[in-house]
Amino acid sequence: MASLSDLPIRDDLRGLSPYGAPQKHVRIQLNVNENTHPIPEAVATDIVSSLAKAILSVNRYPDREFTELRESLAGYVGHGLAAANIWAANGSNEVLQQVLQAFGGPGRSVLGFPPTYSMHSIIASGTGTRWIPGERDASFEISPATVTRWIEQTSPDLVFLCSPNNPTGTPLSLETIAAAYEATPGIVVVDEAYAEFAPAGTESALSLLPGRERLLISRTMSKAFAFAGARVGYLAADPVIADAMRLVRLPYHLSSLTQAAAVAALAHAPEMLAMVDDIRRQRDRLLTELPKLGFHAWPSAANFVLFGGVDDPHAVFEALLDHDIIIRDLGIAGHLRVSAGTEGETTAFLEALEGLRLH
Amino acid sequence: MASLSDLPIRDDLRGLSPYGAPQKHVRIQLNVNENTHPIPEAVATDIVSSLAKAILSVNRYPDREFTELRESLAGYVGHGLAAANIWAANGSNEVLQQVLQAFGGPGRSVLGFPPTYSMHSIIASGTGTRWIPGERDASFEISPATVTRWIEQTSPDLVFLCSPNNPTGTPLSLETIAAAYEATPGIVVVDEAYAEFAPAGTESALSLLPGRERLLISRTMSKAFAFAGARVGYLAADPVIADAMRLVRLPYHLSSLTQAAAVAALAHAPEMLAMVDDIRRQRDRLLTELPKLGFHAWPSAANFVLFGGVDDPHAVFEALLDHDIIIRDLGIAGHLRVSAGTEGETTAFLEALEGLRLH
Repeated sequence: MASLSDLPIRDDLRGLSPYGAPQKHVRIQLNVNENTHPIPEAVATDIVSSLAKAILSVNRYPDREFTELRESLAGYVGHGLAAANIWAANGSNEVLQQVLQAFGGPGRSVLGFPPTYSMHSIIASGTGTRWIPGERDASFEISPATVTRWIEQTSPDLVFLCSPNNPTGTPLSLETIAAAYEATPGIVVVDEAYAEFAPAGTESALSLLPGRERLLISRTMSKAFAFAGARVGYLAADPVIADAMRLVRLPYHLSSLTQAAAVAALAHAPEMLAMVDDIRRQRDRLLTELPKLGFHAWPSAANFVLFGGVDDPHAVFEALLDHDIIIRDLGIAGHLRVSAGTEGETTAFLEALEGLRLH
Repeated sequence: MASLSDLPIRDDLRGLSPYGAPQKHVRIQLNVNENTHPIPEAVATDIVSSLAKAILSVNRYPDREFTELRESLAGYVGHGLAAANIWAANGSNEVLQQVLQAFGGPGRSVLGFPPTYSMHSIIASGTGTRWIPGERDASFEISPATVTRWIEQTSPDLVFLCSPNNPTGTPLSLETIAAAYEATPGIVVVDEAYAEFAPAGTESALSLLPGRERLLISRTMSKAFAFAGARVGYLAADPVIADAMRLVRLPYHLSSLTQAAAVAALAHAPEMLAMVDDIRRQRDRLLTELPKLGFHAWPSAANFVLFGGVDDPHAVFEALLDHDIIIRDLGIAGHLRVSAGTEGETTAFLEALEGLRLH
């Protein structure tokens, strides 16, 4: 039987293992920051009606410009943006891949600040873009001075920021984003996958877009919209950015079904987002309760909490698995990450964790 | 307002225009080789039921291994293949992109034989793989000797063959594919997007897979399955190829909705493929009738016909558009390409074309 080493695979791929959080059949899944609330039934019915209509012309290629979806997304993000400001793809991973295909690639580099979303460096590698790992300040924060210093010292072609940051949950100030933009002649991407979970009144980096045509805000419907299975990521930027994306995207990259489902979901934004408040409450419970169990919970503006003070993360991960609960071991010493689930799931996690401390 | 030239876009993208056949609102669309037959209503109902079920857990990430879909595709292609032999992505374009990410890329090259599917060279360029344009024999064919000579002279890392070839319709012999495989230590991809339209009894390159772990057969559900809008391409190969694809694919690249829709459609393969016979008949009508109108119709084993002897292709294209009929002007001197539509569409095209000749 043939093995990978027998094949003429690229040298930079030899010996690598594929990315992937384990996909296990576990009752309580708090490991990949999904929205554990199923979408409301009335909304599901409407989405299915839209899909039923779309299937009738599925023999035809989809609208390559996904105009209706871009209009819906523009309406949702507000900030005076129009369809021309929006680009979308099969998940924000594909959006970021297209950004790197257009502005990164061989001979170019992207600066990021680990620990951060692990796909950032993987997508950089997949597109041949050199990944420059910057360093965060204490408490995982990034000050305007820090981002400026790293940009001046490394001259990256792109800067990837993550706000709030995954896996730490750390918010990022608009001042830091504006400082990064001032410091570089390159592209600045702010990954706002978890923006909807930030405390009420938090300003999005969308507010910085006017006059900054090199600033890209990446978003996803996976989290707040409970749409991880549908794979819809998008970005908001100057219309010229969509022109750049058209040069690198595969034609018809977004299926008719994806477009129909997303447009229908966006028409129900208030109902779809209704569960965000509940998830925020569960996150705040985690932030309150984890310290009572003796852990250090890092401040989080997202739908998950990174907590430290775990003597043996792997053992705790496995012990929770025995309770039919899966969380995430990211390989950060002494730390684990848990997603905020429903009230019942969060309770089950906290109780199981407390049980482990007692034994 | 910013323009692309103001942005730090990659140098190799400067001045390019995006790929794209025009998407116009025209009554009779015979320009992009779609299956113009809508899917049967009973099948559509079943697909919608599957989508309705999938939407209930759309808050969760999709099965990253799309196991059920791979099992269904393996059952469909037969030839003793199992799920482990199958890989799939959002259209065969994405399959080919992943193949080039794993086996091509900077410093590597791919040999193809224009005129061929235009995305082959575009995806090569998008992945930084050098495109080597080979030359076909007379009548657009490729003999075993020709493919061997080109491989020996250019030492490509990959060879892309297209069977039957788009846009010429030309079949490709298994002897040529086997000769290509013998001549190269690299990867050989046979793009069989239109395989189902070949004359009954035509052997697929799938029959060559045993013992050839560097041979990849790429397929799509867009054409015979009337599923262009759903974006489902796949490949069949040794299981080790799927291992390579896992290193370059973005995780969760196939949505739950795509997986559900495709599995449901594959369960109805006989009904979905029922229209293939009718399309073959319309293609054969084109092959018979175009010469009567004074054109040269190239032999075709696909759902389209390339025809020559057109004095002014652009003028004929435009004149047909005035009749609410769109076909394809590929920039091949003296030639146009037309997809085989329904009986009514094919008749309308032939009558309109005859009318143009008379005036």
